Amino acid sequence: MKIPRATAKRLPMYYRYLSGLHDAKVKRISSSMFADAVQVDSATIRRDLSYFGALGKRGYGYDVDNLLEFFKKILNQDHLTNVALVGLGNLGQALLNFNFHKDSNVRISAAFDIHEHMINTVQSGVPVYDVKYLKKQLSEQQIDVVILTVPTGVAQQICDQAISGGAKGIMNFTSKRLSAPANVRVQNVDLTNELQTLIYFIEHYDN
Amino acid sequence: MKIPRATAKRLPMYYRYLSGLHDAKVKRISSSMFADAVQVDSATIRRDLSYFGALGKRGYGYDVDNLLEFFKKILNQDHLTNVALVGLGNLGQALLNFNFHKDSNVRISAAFDIHEHMINTVQSGVPVYDVKYLKKQLSEQQIDVVILTVPTGVAQQICDQAISGGAKGIMNFTSKRLSAPANVRVQNVDLTNELQTLIYFIEHYDN
Repeated sequence: MKIPRATAKRLPMYYRYLSGLHDAKVKRISSSMFADAVQVDSATIRRDLSYFGALGKRGYGYDVDNLLEFFKKILNQDHLTNVALVGLGNLGQALLNFNFHKDSNVRISAAFDIHEHMINTVQSGVPVYDVKYLKKQLSEQQIDVVILTVPTGVAQQICDQAISGGAKGIMNFTSKRLSAPANVRVQNVDLTNELQTLIYFIEHYDN
Repeated sequence: MKIPRATAKRLPMYYRYLSGLHDAKVKRISSSMFADAVQVDSATIRRDLSYFGALGKRGYGYDVDNLLEFFKKILNQDHLTNVALVGLGNLGQALLNFNFHKDSNVRISAAFDIHEHMINTVQSGVPVYDVKYLKKQLSEQQIDVVILTVPTGVAQQICDQAISGGAKGIMNFTSKRLSAPANVRVQNVDLTNELQTLIYFIEHYDN
């Protein structure tokens, strides 16, 4: 099933909100409360959910537990996804510590670095391998998602190695625009870019 | 001038690419080379640039230095923007170390935390203040951009304080969807969300 990218991007947010409600033992939620909480208008929410079949009931809203079960399946929250992290500079180490929210079922299970003092140690509970074994380890551990926090100058080369090791998804924190085959998805997270865009908007738009 | 958000988001990327060319003493670039490098099709680039007036010449491409000067102005690269960071957990400290690319003219100039051992120290060259003075310091230092890396549970409260201190832009790294007045821009950077979306796409799309 193909859903629009914009919809897909909102799903994890919906999921996390519903998790919070579930933890708070809330059983149902009106569509307007839902909309307020996630800051997405209710028509958009309704449309997003409609891609998966109608899930709300008029005058009732949404059943939290049902919806949550549903999202868990969609987002593969019902099985753990192992992810590799390459590059243990400041940002890499922060991501390792952060290791994504506890309720996300995503886990960094292998890290790679070039520095002798890091290699073959365990950092924040995650084993660190020599980056020269990236391809081998990804393939052996069947990890297909890789987070890149390496220097820009080596980003393409590491990306190529990751792909040859079987990576299907690359989360790219470098400012290098990576080339990758069409069957590999690259998600760019350029923090400087995000910040500059924010500043640009502040200075040019009154909102 | 109002340009589409999607265009605005690509500008910093264009800018950084052109900076690299400039450093490498490249004087001009064809539109197809430009397109390849930034992984955006050349029609989109042309349209993006057209919002600012036609900047390329047919059969010549783009003059790197001219374009760069132009972007510097657009993105306010010709003056420094000071930014505050609130919350020195793992991610906060990483951002402080990272302090955005050297060529971005964005600088974290004040940090805020709640922990005694951090307050009134200098971390990575940046002074750390007690978060209870957030409003006062933002206002005194005339900082209007704030990066939030605080626990989700206090995100809204800190956001409110920042806005009362004059913040016009909030870069929100928490998974809390913040409420803010219409004249304040919130840019959400939810890393777990990004990663889950990536995984979702890998498992559901063949690209």
